Amino acid sequence: MKFSTEELIKGIRSGDKRLIGKAITLAESKKAEHRQQAEELLMQIMPYTGNSVRVGVTGVPGAGKSTFIENFGRLAIANGKKVAVLAIDPSSAINKGSILGDKTRMEELAKEENAFIRPSPSSGFLGGVANTTFETMMICEAAGYDYILIETVGVGQSEVLVADITDVFLFLKITGGGDELQGIKRGIMEMVDVIFINKVEAENLQKAKNTRLELKRALDFIPPKEKDWKVPVLLGSALSNNGLEEVFEKISDFIILKKKTGRFEQVRIRQAEKRFEYWVQEYILSMMKKNNSVEEAYMQHKKNASAMVSNPSTEAKLFVEKFLPRN
Amino acid sequence: MKFSTEELIKGIRSGDKRLIGKAITLAESKKAEHRQQAEELLMQIMPYTGNSVRVGVTGVPGAGKSTFIENFGRLAIANGKKVAVLAIDPSSAINKGSILGDKTRMEELAKEENAFIRPSPSSGFLGGVANTTFETMMICEAAGYDYILIETVGVGQSEVLVADITDVFLFLKITGGGDELQGIKRGIMEMVDVIFINKVEAENLQKAKNTRLELKRALDFIPPKEKDWKVPVLLGSALSNNGLEEVFEKISDFIILKKKTGRFEQVRIRQAEKRFEYWVQEYILSMMKKNNSVEEAYMQHKKNASAMVSNPSTEAKLFVEKFLPRN
Repeated sequence: MKFSTEELIKGIRSGDKRLIGKAITLAESKKAEHRQQAEELLMQIMPYTGNSVRVGVTGVPGAGKSTFIENFGRLAIANGKKVAVLAIDPSSAINKGSILGDKTRMEELAKEENAFIRPSPSSGFLGGVANTTFETMMICEAAGYDYILIETVGVGQSEVLVADITDVFLFLKITGGGDELQGIKRGIMEMVDVIFINKVEAENLQKAKNTRLELKRALDFIPPKEKDWKVPVLLGSALSNNGLEEVFEKISDFIILKKKTGRFEQVRIRQAEKRFEYWVQEYILSMMKKNNSVEEAYMQHKKNASAMVSNPSTEAKLFVEKFLPRN
Repeated sequence: MKFSTEELIKGIRSGDKRLIGKAITLAESKKAEHRQQAEELLMQIMPYTGNSVRVGVTGVPGAGKSTFIENFGRLAIANGKKVAVLAIDPSSAINKGSILGDKTRMEELAKEENAFIRPSPSSGFLGGVANTTFETMMICEAAGYDYILIETVGVGQSEVLVADITDVFLFLKITGGGDELQGIKRGIMEMVDVIFINKVEAENLQKAKNTRLELKRALDFIPPKEKDWKVPVLLGSALSNNGLEEVFEKISDFIILKKKTGRFEQVRIRQAEKRFEYWVQEYILSMMKKNNSVEEAYMQHKKNASAMVSNPSTEAKLFVEKFLPRN
C-alpha cells in the first residue's frame, strides 16, 4: 500500500473517489500489515461514521435490482443525498454479474458526482473472501455518503449478512404467472421492511395487484419484525421511474419510526457486536498461523482429518484443547 | 440425550430411522456435553463413512427442486440405491419451504423404506445455525445410504457450502421468456457438473432447446472445472419422470471419471480440511466462553465495539492479542 493512513483519511474526508477505493481495498485485505493499517484507519474515521441510511436491496435474479438501484440512487441524489452502492457478496451482480456481462449496468448512476459504486471483491467466488462490506460502509460514511445501497442476490445466506449490517431491508418482487408466493422463502418475508413489486406496466397491472394481495395476506401470518410497522407493498417500474418516490418516502418513514422507538440504535448495537464476533474469529485464525508450534499442531491435526482416519470435528476439538486454557 | 453412544451407533448401523434422527440432532447441537458425545459417535462411525455419492442440487425457487428430488430419489431407489435427502440451510425448502406450506412435498419418496428425508435444522433462520450437514451426511453414510441428495436454494452463498461437501453439483434450470442467461451468476456456472433443464414439455421444447444452446455457449467461456468433463445440459421433466435416467447415468459417469483421475479423492481431502477449519473456529469460540477471565475480556471488548466508540474489528484484534501468544 503506497498511501499513508493520513493520506487515505484525507482522501476519504475530501471525497476523493480514487483514495476511497484504495482505503476499501485496504480494509478488504487479510494480510497482517494491511490489517494493521486498516485498523488504524477505521479507528480514526469512527467519529465520522454511522450517519447514513443503510439499505439492503434483495430480489431473485431478474427482479431488476440493478435498474432499481440505478434509478433509485439517482432519485436519492436528486433529493440531495450522496449515494454509495455496494454488493454483499462476490457472486452478486455488480461486477461479475450475468454471464452476458452487461456493461451498461448503472452507467448513468456511475456518472453522477454524488454517487460511488463499489464492485464486490474480485477474489474467486469459491475462495472465501473476507466479508468486509461493513467496513466498506464505514469508509463510505466517513466520505460523506448518506445513503448506502447494498445489493444482494435474492435467496440463500446473503440476506442474513445484509440484515446484519443494514437499517432497512427492501425486497424487489416481480409478477409472474401462477402462484405468486411459490418460491418466496419464509426467511425473506420475516426480514423484509418494504416490498416493491417491480416491472409493473399497464398490461400486467391487474396481475401485480393480485400479487400484492397475496403478499399482504402472507405478511399477516408472519410475526411483525418492527412493532407499529406494517410492511408496505408498493407497485411500480424502476425502469420507467414509476413508484420510486414512494419507496424513498417509505424508507424515510421507517427510519423515523425506528429512531423514535429506539430500535434503530438497538439494532445497530447488535450489529456492531456481530462484527466484533466475526473479527474475533478472523484474528484468532491469523494469530494462530503466526505461532510456529501452534501452526505445526494445526497442520498435524488437519492432516489427520484429511487422511480420513479421524473425523474433522474431533481433530478440531483435540487441537483447540491443546493450546487453549480449559480450566 | 437419553441414548448412549452405543445405542445410537447400533441404531444407525441397523438403519433405525428414529435413532438416525436422534444421532443427527446430537451432531447438530452446540452444547458442550452433546458435542462430547457427538465427537465420540462420529469417531466410531468413521470406518463406515465415505462410500456414498454426494449430490448437491441447486436451482432458483420454482425450478422444481423438490419434485426433482422426489422422483430422482425414487429412480435411484429403483436402481438399488438407498437415498438420503438433506438441506444445506434452514432457509431451504425441505421444512420451511414456501409460505403456502406445501405439505405433500416428497410424500411419495418419504414412504419408501430405502429413503430418509431430514428436514433442515429448525432453529431460526436469523439465529445462525451451526452448519452440520457434513456430519449429518456421515451419519447417513454409516446407516447405509449410498446416494445423498443435498438441496439448496439457487443463489447466494449456500452453493459454496454445498460444493464444499459434495462430489457432484447439479443445477436445475427452467426455460422462461427472453434472455435465458440473465440472472445466472458466473459463480454457479463455474461450480456446476451437470445441468438439467426441467419442466420441458412438448409446448416449450423449442424454447428449451434454445436455452440449452445458450447454456452450452456460455459454458464454453468458462474454464472447465474438471478436465475431460464437458458439463452435460439435459432436458426433461421431473414431474413426468422424463429425462431422469439420463441425469442418473451422467452422475455415475462423472463419479467414475473423477475416481479414475484421482480428483474424487483429492477433493474429498480438501473438503475434510475445510471441515476441520470450520470446527476449529467453532471450538475456539466455545472454549473461550468457558474461561472466566477470557470471557470477561471478551465481553468488555464487545461492549466497546457496540458502544461505537471503537470499531468492531479493532476491538477484536485487541482482544485476540491479549490472550493468544503473539511471537
